[in-house]
Amino acid sequence: MNGVILVSGGMDSLVTAAIAKRECAETFFLHINYGQKTEKKELQLFQKICEFYQPEDQLVVNIDYLQKIGGSSLTDDKLAVRDFAGQAKIPTSYVPFRNAHFLAIATSWAEIHKIKNIYIGAVEEDSSGYPDCRKSFYHSFQKAIDLGTKDETQIMIKTPVIDLSKTEIIKLGKKLGVPFELSWSCYKNNEIACGKCDSCVLRINAFKKAKIIDPISYEIEINWLE
Amino acid sequence: MNGVILVSGGMDSLVTAAIAKRECAETFFLHINYGQKTEKKELQLFQKICEFYQPEDQLVVNIDYLQKIGGSSLTDDKLAVRDFAGQAKIPTSYVPFRNAHFLAIATSWAEIHKIKNIYIGAVEEDSSGYPDCRKSFYHSFQKAIDLGTKDETQIMIKTPVIDLSKTEIIKLGKKLGVPFELSWSCYKNNEIACGKCDSCVLRINAFKKAKIIDPISYEIEINWLE
Repeated sequence: MNGVILVSGGMDSLVTAAIAKRECAETFFLHINYGQKTEKKELQLFQKICEFYQPEDQLVVNIDYLQKIGGSSLTDDKLAVRDFAGQAKIPTSYVPFRNAHFLAIATSWAEIHKIKNIYIGAVEEDSSGYPDCRKSFYHSFQKAIDLGTKDETQIMIKTPVIDLSKTEIIKLGKKLGVPFELSWSCYKNNEIACGKCDSCVLRINAFKKAKIIDPISYEIEINWLE
Repeated sequence: MNGVILVSGGMDSLVTAAIAKRECAETFFLHINYGQKTEKKELQLFQKICEFYQPEDQLVVNIDYLQKIGGSSLTDDKLAVRDFAGQAKIPTSYVPFRNAHFLAIATSWAEIHKIKNIYIGAVEEDSSGYPDCRKSFYHSFQKAIDLGTKDETQIMIKTPVIDLSKTEIIKLGKKLGVPFELSWSCYKNNEIACGKCDSCVLRINAFKKAKIIDPISYEIEINWLE
């Protein structure tokens, strides 16, 4: 078995990479720069994650036209990354249809190299409510891959953590020996995580619930034992 | 009504643009450079097509990572563009899953600007047999858009020429006053069309059948009246 794994530098895709490493004899790590504010850090970590997991091949693709298209606080300097305000509606960090771009790129790479699986660390329930993280979206995109590639091409989208909570993902990662110090969740900073944006708060709360101390540093003081 | 129109510089998308211009009060022309050998010419023509049709906005997006991924004679210098050898299996010019990338980009742009339609000049029957030109592919991608964007976002994929033959497309274009001199089909050359690649041969034959003289120049002599 072989697989393309979308590795963002985040925690969910890192655990997904660990799962793929167990399932696949050959892995191909794909990192996509979409002009997000924390790309510098994420790319650095992607390189380190590749050193750690030693995939057969790795590819970095630049689609920073998503920054030009704009509309998301992750890519648009005019829009501030907001502090966490509860999991209500789709937050301003939503990058329109972003994961469809990721899947399209992974599919093209997979089709050329006859790779049978695409792993993506999307999380549906316990996440920010992005529409392109829904399980139903992946089912429909699977259909688009089946119909939009050669008949002999067989590519399966795998979303091994989609039904897990962030806490479960951390616990699973711990069991799989995932190097969480090589992951980054902050939407805002490239050096020390802010601890206040949506993504930091979800991560911190999940580590607390898992009763594991997050190995990365935060700008604010965190009581991991509370 | 408003619409994003994918304008490649080719004949099918040019006629599609003319149709969209009739249907939409506001049009947004999108051109995508995917590292194809004839991009220089196509981008030039895109600019001229914009001058002609005066869309509300225009956007050029670079996804030449498809060239890096390779595997197609359109983007890979190691693979020659073959001469026409009949419409059999999927030709080497197939760029893996290319139109999914195009649709994803159009969708992101449309979602941000609340544009309701995406026009793409795909042709199913009378074409080169690319899987990402099948009507069923567009139906499945429509579903992926519905599920992968915000619930309030409503975007429809329109493929107005998908069931037409190339000859019918030319006749329709003629009726709509399409400036065919601003279109390019050759896969190989940037200056004078080769007249021998798949795409040139389909175009030439269609013009002949339509009993219309193609306004562009070819390297080989063509008897338009035969």
